[in-house]
Amino acid sequence: MDSTALIPVQYGLDTFYFLICGALVMWMAAGFAMLESGLVRAKNTAEILTKNIVLYAVASIMYLLIGYYIMYSSPEGGILPSLGFLIGDEHAVDVVAAGGEDAPYYSSRADFFFQVVFAATCMSVVSGAVAERMKLWAFIAFAVVMTGFIYPVQGYWKWGSGFLNEMGFLDFAGSGIVHMAGAAAALAGVLLLGARKGKYGPNGQINAFPGANLPLATLGAFILWMGWFGFNGGSQLKMSTIEDANAVAQVFTNTNLAAAGGLVAALITARLLFGKSDLTMVLNGALAGLVAITAEPLTPSALQAVLIGGVGGVLVVFSILALDKL
Amino acid sequence: MDSTALIPVQYGLDTFYFLICGALVMWMAAGFAMLESGLVRAKNTAEILTKNIVLYAVASIMYLLIGYYIMYSSPEGGILPSLGFLIGDEHAVDVVAAGGEDAPYYSSRADFFFQVVFAATCMSVVSGAVAERMKLWAFIAFAVVMTGFIYPVQGYWKWGSGFLNEMGFLDFAGSGIVHMAGAAAALAGVLLLGARKGKYGPNGQINAFPGANLPLATLGAFILWMGWFGFNGGSQLKMSTIEDANAVAQVFTNTNLAAAGGLVAALITARLLFGKSDLTMVLNGALAGLVAITAEPLTPSALQAVLIGGVGGVLVVFSILALDKL
Amino acid sequence: MDSTALIPVQYGLDTFYFLICGALVMWMAAGFAMLESGLVRAKNTAEILTKNIVLYAVASIMYLLIGYYIMYSSPEGGILPSLGFLIGDEHAVDVVAAGGEDAPYYSSRADFFFQVVFAATCMSVVSGAVAERMKLWAFIAFAVVMTGFIYPVQGYWKWGSGFLNEMGFLDFAGSGIVHMAGAAAALAGVLLLGARKGKYGPNGQINAFPGANLPLATLGAFILWMGWFGFNGGSQLKMSTIEDANAVAQVFTNTNLAAAGGLVAALITARLLFGKSDLTMVLNGALAGLVAITAEPLTPSALQAVLIGGVGGVLVVFSILALDKL
Repeated sequence: MDSTALIPVQYGLDTFYFLICGALVMWMAAGFAMLESGLVRAKNTAEILTKNIVLYAVASIMYLLIGYYIMYSSPEGGILPSLGFLIGDEHAVDVVAAGGEDAPYYSSRADFFFQVVFAATCMSVVSGAVAERMKLWAFIAFAVVMTGFIYPVQGYWKWGSGFLNEMGFLDFAGSGIVHMAGAAAALAGVLLLGARKGKYGPNGQINAFPGANLPLATLGAFILWMGWFGFNGGSQLKMSTIEDANAVAQVFTNTNLAAAGGLVAALITARLLFGKSDLTMVLNGALAGLVAITAEPLTPSALQAVLIGGVGGVLVVFSILALDKL
Repeated sequence: MDSTALIPVQYGLDTFYFLICGALVMWMAAGFAMLESGLVRAKNTAEILTKNIVLYAVASIMYLLIGYYIMYSSPEGGILPSLGFLIGDEHAVDVVAAGGEDAPYYSSRADFFFQVVFAATCMSVVSGAVAERMKLWAFIAFAVVMTGFIYPVQGYWKWGSGFLNEMGFLDFAGSGIVHMAGAAAALAGVLLLGARKGKYGPNGQINAFPGANLPLATLGAFILWMGWFGFNGGSQLKMSTIEDANAVAQVFTNTNLAAAGGLVAALITARLLFGKSDLTMVLNGALAGLVAITAEPLTPSALQAVLIGGVGGVLVVFSILALDKL
Repeated sequence: MDSTALIPVQYGLDTFYFLICGALVMWMAAGFAMLESGLVRAKNTAEILTKNIVLYAVASIMYLLIGYYIMYSSPEGGILPSLGFLIGDEHAVDVVAAGGEDAPYYSSRADFFFQVVFAATCMSVVSGAVAERMKLWAFIAFAVVMTGFIYPVQGYWKWGSGFLNEMGFLDFAGSGIVHMAGAAAALAGVLLLGARKGKYGPNGQINAFPGANLPLATLGAFILWMGWFGFNGGSQLKMSTIEDANAVAQVFTNTNLAAAGGLVAALITARLLFGKSDLTMVLNGALAGLVAITAEPLTPSALQAVLIGGVGGVLVVFSILALDKL
């Protein structure tokens, strides 16, 4: 047995790891749908559900047709290998069974699957912010542009070896490339669309919009928490060495602890500020912890992960307060 | 180290892959439960939930006691090895650790687990069609017969090397064997049971039954979409070679894209026909795309998968229209 | 290629298996949240949701800070290696790449992740029993003590090589260490707190508290059923040999069949006793079957697993009857 005999089983393991992580990220789309449909007013439930499942489908198709090529085409390689994937030819690298530093260690189809669910996540971030503000077909048009063009261009800057990458920008799993990209697009949308009707009274008073369905919102947060293991854990890209396996395990642990830290920090902050606990703040705290750790879930120790998440959890409570006062 | 040293880790990987895909298919039972309980009228919610979780349990037990032996007993091998599994003896093939073409590459227990959740899926298909039409205990009796006898006989025709297999019938993951088998049984049940009470008025007018709980229905569709990765992806049966890993990754990608294609096609078709979007149609479109690709999720290119799903999505809208007019 | 060449891929597979099983156990926290929020009265929904997601975060942090060291520190090894993990140094055993009987076969970080979700599960068991009886902050204090001290001490007795282990106590995945430990703490809490207000009328009559949201409760049961594959399946601790792979597959199969057996037994028992089916009993039957098999999901044959689950399903119906009469 020569030294290349191990390659098929490594390739199988790494591909399987990638696909399962991708399925967990796909599951995040359901998490956003439940979270958002639980937090909007009951009259808008059907619309926000429609937007969330439609955007996932649109992202899958637009990223296939256009986004993937924008994000990963290099000046040297051109887009031909990518087009080969689209029309079904075997991706060249997949058939290379030889070892060596440059040999592929997972199926390029698995890589595509993992990438496509990231594009959808970026748009899911947008959907929450423009909830109750945007008509369905305008939102769908936004999703087409965002997942086919805007996200891929931003993704190219870092993961496609663009200028951010050359400047040494670090983003392990997409705090910036996915979540901030989505948030920036959402902010632009919100500035354009203005406040939700009825949010502010004629004398400037703020009307609270309590969530219509807290169990759904909580389910959504749990789904996102679970799916994030795939989002961050899959971003190590490899599982079949001791170093990679340790890294993925550290990422899982840190992701979990950052969410926990964010939740507890938001719970305590809200208690100190308002004198009572608030479920919506608690859920937002967990999500803020998850977003905070996503930029670098590998390097921090377990204790540091709790603290990083905790900073996110404190910030999110003050952010919500500040936004309400704007 | 001789050439058989790799077998245990291959065996472990392929067994794990099978078990995780099986758990995802089990999860589809929850998806059917949520989808159906979201779409029936509120007064029937508890009953449809009971049916859905009971059928999963009944399928698990009936397929263990009877179905598995009907489906996979060969004239040569007889049912003795299967009975050995039932009463707990080590399945003969599992202890074979030698390599070669005929060596097993995963635990027969994992195969059983994967098979049993397919039997449950077949009955879940039935449950949606007979929702609001059938009493609980009649439905349970139906589930006993369907998962213990009818599905296994149909499964034997193809996957147990029966006549369909000999005629060259192709069905990668069960578009026919699982979904059409379930649908045919459901159609027979529906013809026997007649329309839901109140569906048609005295003068033939059609009364719409809007879904009582759209978030649940959407959650159900997301769960089914996710579970289907296991349903189709697991049907490759193997993960530990480069060819198999590429195939599973292609299946995951195509399954996702067919659902997306079906959703978008149903969205556009409903918009053109009715002038507005409709969440229930959108969900049905995604599921139609998933059923459509299940017959052959491996061979099509990514683009073809979108189109295959899209055909399913268009058909489902017209089917619902046609059924309403019957 | 020498005999240690396989170690990295085995290590990767076993670590991945552990992490995915851990993610499934984490998912059980969502299952408890949905089950409990579906079964309490509507006015208590937000509180029970808050408790469930907060306890998961508290468990994650307390087990990191204290519990893990109580549970696994040995007199010989001391707690220094564990502290190394907490502050981020490489865990000593992870860097050992050599083979042999004592070599680690998965990342200690993955082990920590798997352990932490068990601590959370133990507290989730408590949360259901004290639902509607305990104020939020008292519950949080309870969670701090339970997951930081009580559960780890009990866990040490068996899994940390304490006196139960030396006495030959068997508990494959935690029927006793997790579920009975949680139940005992819950019983203590319930005895202290007394009945839920309004449960008993002035003349001793019993007031039924029907669940407010049966779809959520059913979803919760499905989530727990799915998550239990990770809970029991992960407790084999290893996947990369033929013996281990067969064992994990047997555990998955038996776990599924015990839940099915418990469900069907509770369905039939409730039908015989009350003359009708009852969804809540059916769900409890499945969960009782799962708890019953958790002590030893490996040794029983498939048929025995159905029977073991069935005994649990019968017992749970009589337990609920008996508790109502107390």
